[in-house]
Amino acid sequence: MTDMNRPAGIGGILAPGSVAVIGASEDLTKFGGRLYTLLVQHKFPGVIYPINPKRESLLGIQCYAAIGDTPTAPDLAVMAVPRDHVKAAVQECAAAGTRAAVIITAKFSDSGEEGAALEREIVEIARAAGMRLIGPNCLGIISPANKLALCSSPALFVDKLPEGRIGIVSQSGALMATIFDRAQTRGVGFSHCFSIGNQADMELCDFLEFLIDDPATGVICTYVEGLKDGPRFLEMAARARAAGKPILAVKAGRTDFGAAAAFSHTASLAGSYDAFATACRETGVVLLDDADAMIMLAASLTTFATPARSDVAILTTSGGGGAITADRLADAGLPMAAFDDGTAAAMEELFDSHLTRVNPMDMGAAKFGGSTANSNKCTQALMKDSGTGLVIAPITTSPDVAKICMGICDGMEIAAEGGARKPCLIVVQPGQAGDKARADLRARGMIYLESIDEAIRVAEGYRTMLASSPRNPASSGSPGKAPEGLSGALDEAAAKTLLAAYGVPVNRGEVVAEAGEGALTAGMMDGPLVVKVVSPDIVHKSDAGGVALNLAGPEEVSEAIASMQARLAKSHPDAKIDGFLVQEMVSGAFEMFIGATNDPQFGPMVMVGAGGVVIELLKDVAMARAPVTPAEATAMLTGLKVAPLLAGYRGAPALDVAALADAVSRVSWLAADLGEGFAELDVNPVLVRVAGQGCTGVDARILMEG
Amino acid sequence: MTDMNRPAGIGGILAPGSVAVIGASEDLTKFGGRLYTLLVQHKFPGVIYPINPKRESLLGIQCYAAIGDTPTAPDLAVMAVPRDHVKAAVQECAAAGTRAAVIITAKFSDSGEEGAALEREIVEIARAAGMRLIGPNCLGIISPANKLALCSSPALFVDKLPEGRIGIVSQSGALMATIFDRAQTRGVGFSHCFSIGNQADMELCDFLEFLIDDPATGVICTYVEGLKDGPRFLEMAARARAAGKPILAVKAGRTDFGAAAAFSHTASLAGSYDAFATACRETGVVLLDDADAMIMLAASLTTFATPARSDVAILTTSGGGGAITADRLADAGLPMAAFDDGTAAAMEELFDSHLTRVNPMDMGAAKFGGSTANSNKCTQALMKDSGTGLVIAPITTSPDVAKICMGICDGMEIAAEGGARKPCLIVVQPGQAGDKARADLRARGMIYLESIDEAIRVAEGYRTMLASSPRNPASSGSPGKAPEGLSGALDEAAAKTLLAAYGVPVNRGEVVAEAGEGALTAGMMDGPLVVKVVSPDIVHKSDAGGVALNLAGPEEVSEAIASMQARLAKSHPDAKIDGFLVQEMVSGAFEMFIGATNDPQFGPMVMVGAGGVVIELLKDVAMARAPVTPAEATAMLTGLKVAPLLAGYRGAPALDVAALADAVSRVSWLAADLGEGFAELDVNPVLVRVAGQGCTGVDARILMEG
Repeated sequence: MTDMNRPAGIGGILAPGSVAVIGASEDLTKFGGRLYTLLVQHKFPGVIYPINPKRESLLGIQCYAAIGDTPTAPDLAVMAVPRDHVKAAVQECAAAGTRAAVIITAKFSDSGEEGAALEREIVEIARAAGMRLIGPNCLGIISPANKLALCSSPALFVDKLPEGRIGIVSQSGALMATIFDRAQTRGVGFSHCFSIGNQADMELCDFLEFLIDDPATGVICTYVEGLKDGPRFLEMAARARAAGKPILAVKAGRTDFGAAAAFSHTASLAGSYDAFATACRETGVVLLDDADAMIMLAASLTTFATPARSDVAILTTSGGGGAITADRLADAGLPMAAFDDGTAAAMEELFDSHLTRVNPMDMGAAKFGGSTANSNKCTQALMKDSGTGLVIAPITTSPDVAKICMGICDGMEIAAEGGARKPCLIVVQPGQAGDKARADLRARGMIYLESIDEAIRVAEGYRTMLASSPRNPASSGSPGKAPEGLSGALDEAAAKTLLAAYGVPVNRGEVVAEAGEGALTAGMMDGPLVVKVVSPDIVHKSDAGGVALNLAGPEEVSEAIASMQARLAKSHPDAKIDGFLVQEMVSGAFEMFIGATNDPQFGPMVMVGAGGVVIELLKDVAMARAPVTPAEATAMLTGLKVAPLLAGYRGAPALDVAALADAVSRVSWLAADLGEGFAELDVNPVLVRVAGQGCTGVDARILMEG
Repeated sequence: MTDMNRPAGIGGILAPGSVAVIGASEDLTKFGGRLYTLLVQHKFPGVIYPINPKRESLLGIQCYAAIGDTPTAPDLAVMAVPRDHVKAAVQECAAAGTRAAVIITAKFSDSGEEGAALEREIVEIARAAGMRLIGPNCLGIISPANKLALCSSPALFVDKLPEGRIGIVSQSGALMATIFDRAQTRGVGFSHCFSIGNQADMELCDFLEFLIDDPATGVICTYVEGLKDGPRFLEMAARARAAGKPILAVKAGRTDFGAAAAFSHTASLAGSYDAFATACRETGVVLLDDADAMIMLAASLTTFATPARSDVAILTTSGGGGAITADRLADAGLPMAAFDDGTAAAMEELFDSHLTRVNPMDMGAAKFGGSTANSNKCTQALMKDSGTGLVIAPITTSPDVAKICMGICDGMEIAAEGGARKPCLIVVQPGQAGDKARADLRARGMIYLESIDEAIRVAEGYRTMLASSPRNPASSGSPGKAPEGLSGALDEAAAKTLLAAYGVPVNRGEVVAEAGEGALTAGMMDGPLVVKVVSPDIVHKSDAGGVALNLAGPEEVSEAIASMQARLAKSHPDAKIDGFLVQEMVSGAFEMFIGATNDPQFGPMVMVGAGGVVIELLKDVAMARAPVTPAEATAMLTGLKVAPLLAGYRGAPALDVAALADAVSRVSWLAADLGEGFAELDVNPVLVRVAGQGCTGVDARILMEG
């Protein structure tokens, strides 16, 4: 029987007293053979039960024909058997009282409806027995902290599982194995790595929760294809933040191509990337677009203190390497550090005077010989430099690569005694000439990168981290009250009425049938008015005399409609006239748009961006979880590419950003208040006038579900 | 004495009968020691003369105290001695009749005026004796084709110099050594590699010329910081193109940061990157932004046929790897291949039917087992697929990485019998689990990449190659004749007169002193007119009543000036009035700009781009060597981000692209005709009206040198 005093949850699963391997063999060409061999090889400290009816023993350990035959029920079972055997195996484990099973086998919900039905069945069996499931369609668990290798990947054919403070939760097993392999080759180690497969029972957040609480884990990395439970992910992000444990994430489906690929791969739909990115930014999750960079940022986070700024100093041995790195930084929009006076003084000693304050700092140009001493001194200067957030050190091939690298380590250590321990990303490219340097760095516990690209990506990760601005959507203070029972598409007039009720400035408009009615309508509007004929048969309304601008009041509107009717009756006798649109006139302003959606995972989201023609050219949109305060909306506007235009460009007057931000906030409240049935909302264009003169939504639509 | 029958130029230098190493030793911590040791180790087939007065012999080879003591004059000498000994060594070599010297030693023109003077001196000594110089401040030569290792880099401590068909010319020695090291580790080989240092005598194009003519070289890679001779570079590009030998280039100084770094590194100024990029595009040189990617593209070019299109098929073993690769392709704007019917039929057999035509092609989802067979069949299908230009195959860690890779090679070979041999970029990330795959690929002569980033960069290189459109600026057909003797800055009126003489539509304007003169001036202009007061004391001209629009002719202009004078005399009695600007009125149009510069290396360049506010947000500029034909100008416009706006956006009418292109062509001729003294020209804004209604340059300036 299992020891019921063990802690529940994954913590208990990961420290099992006994593990059964169903499908164990010595055949390294098979999943079960490799998995069993690796479990034994890495000296799992508990009891191992190989389950294989055809063998007496495997690798010197007694075999059992079935789970029921083992002397005690295994705490944990791992299944690498053909799909048709899985259900029976789950039933046996459940009957025996096994606490959890890892199912490697694939072709369940990842492969059509039949597989999905079978998956639901085994989940029911497990849940009825209080047994947890990991997988199916996963690559298992690698838990160096527990000497538990439950994974068939050849990445584990190493002398020792690499221990470290990085935890991984991955929706792709192959990707986990690949980044694990690459990282351990570079001396980077892990606490626990989980391949979570179809998440039939335990899902991504279960593993995040465990890693957040796990004292062996310092940084959490996750590869996400699609979330099962968005709100819980946000909760985990908040908990991790409170615990001071960064969560780094890579999500597939960033682009349309990626989304298609993710969809055809797993049972989970790739969610909206933009909404996920917004949720990450607002909860402090660091979203990256490269899995290796994620691991190397994690390694950097477990090695160095988190920098206070993202300005980069380049420390190099070659002008060429420095120049290319500088170009890359500029491409990435990362700032080059401006050195402070202390660094200038240090450089004065080390270099010819014209190189004082020059970034990249080129050690090759130092006046004195001795690579180790030079790199040591240069590093010390940069570690203390107040303008430098982090250092990228591309070390080109030379006889002294290893010495230079050791000098950098020395410099960091000396500086660290003074408290400074900012990230220093040493780049030693693959090639035999760097072998000794890499080995020496590993021996010293210092991370290195293998390309400038990688270093830039890590620096970008730090920037993302520094730029994250955790917030929660406001929960009270709505400027309006949304009506209930709305459904389907609301037309312009209905949408504008709703927006106006929330205080969003819109130019009111109404379609009237004839002149007198127009006068009535116009009487309820402000300022100059416009009349436009509404007719499917008149395309060029202005040319046809179907537009009247700048009308002063009800009387002029009525006259304009009457004369338009008369004119059109002659010029377009066959045209169907649906009426005349009477609108408040808006002119001479900058086009923006405000929108909102209801993300299936993260709820209502508000967007604002450049409208009209510019939006198509710039894709210039800011997104936030709704509702936002006017101050938060102002921050959204500040991040837009068109922000300089809003602020008043080249001497042009500033636009009414305050009014626009207020409108964004009000729209966000409307979206939030519309509740679950809300689908989409669009106020486009919003014409923004100069400061003090407000903005106006000129067209609008709202879509409700159902 | 040297054998005077050897061919002149670098070909002769590279196949010397004898090499003297001045500063030879057995001390591997010194440049001379490593260089000498490597020369001996790599079995240089000619005579080696170590020069070292303190030793009888070195590595079993007889030593000489000085060049004069050697039994015959060495054909080639290499100098790795302190700077103060270089001049004497050059004198000795010159006296002995040595044909060429490679000077490793630094601190010449790369280090202040004193060094530059010394450099000029040694060049004079060498030239007087007919001796060529390579360097100084270089890392030497690696010539596997000639078993000639004249380079101190630890990258050469390998069993055998890697032979191949790639030639390198690099302005950074460290960068050359680093990329050489990395490439040879991956089984990529070279014909000749030159580190050219300060180019005191032999310059970049001398080496390009040799490699173009060299039968052992198939592809040429060059790292450029600044050119000495732009026109010759263009000539070499044309020759390489004619010879069917691609030139790939990386240039530092792409961004401002990079330019600063390059400047502080070498004696050569980083030229204008945009002009260099334009010259490359127009001569078929493939410009990349990463040195490793350059070498891997070169390796790919020497391994595969050049593809006909840049559409990418992803062949993967993991949905996660495929999704991330697809995201990266989308980021890079590289098209995903749409598979043809043949591929769909092949996939129908290999996969479940819903995966037919799905790109990324996920081998992990294939119905049958057998990694080798699957990857073989998948590869064959992609090699034959008409929609696929090239394949990127990210192979994630699994027990079958090597088998899968061999299956891909098999598939390529089988398909190659049918003629298809398109690039297949296999990605095996660093890590022990891929060691066997990488070794097997190297043994098979197949290239591989070590990150998805790298593969994307190579694919981008192919796209650049396919997009290059070689052209030469027109040499006759100018629409005007530029006056001679212009100098300094031309004001708006003078610039517009010159532009008008070339047929560039500008709105004429002139400053007049008073009402009657205004009438005269207006009489020579067309269409509606504007009058604006010219006064340093009146900033808000409209508010002050200092602007009159839409004036019909001389009389109205005269009246407007008179009333303006009267009005301003009252409202601004103390304002200094410099006159009244009478201009043709232009309105209601889209803002573009046309410009021209005179690049120090490549001569007159013409630019066109979005004007006004958009230019600052988009940096949307096309550049070409001037002059261009209207057809070429049209092609420039087609490549702009604002091209959709010009073509008529969202139902808006098309703009007059023909008139704009004609204006660009005329401006380009003016820039070209202005000759050497021309510096800069700016027509900004150019207002473009709807098709058929032309465009007008509203402001203009021209700057001549002197």
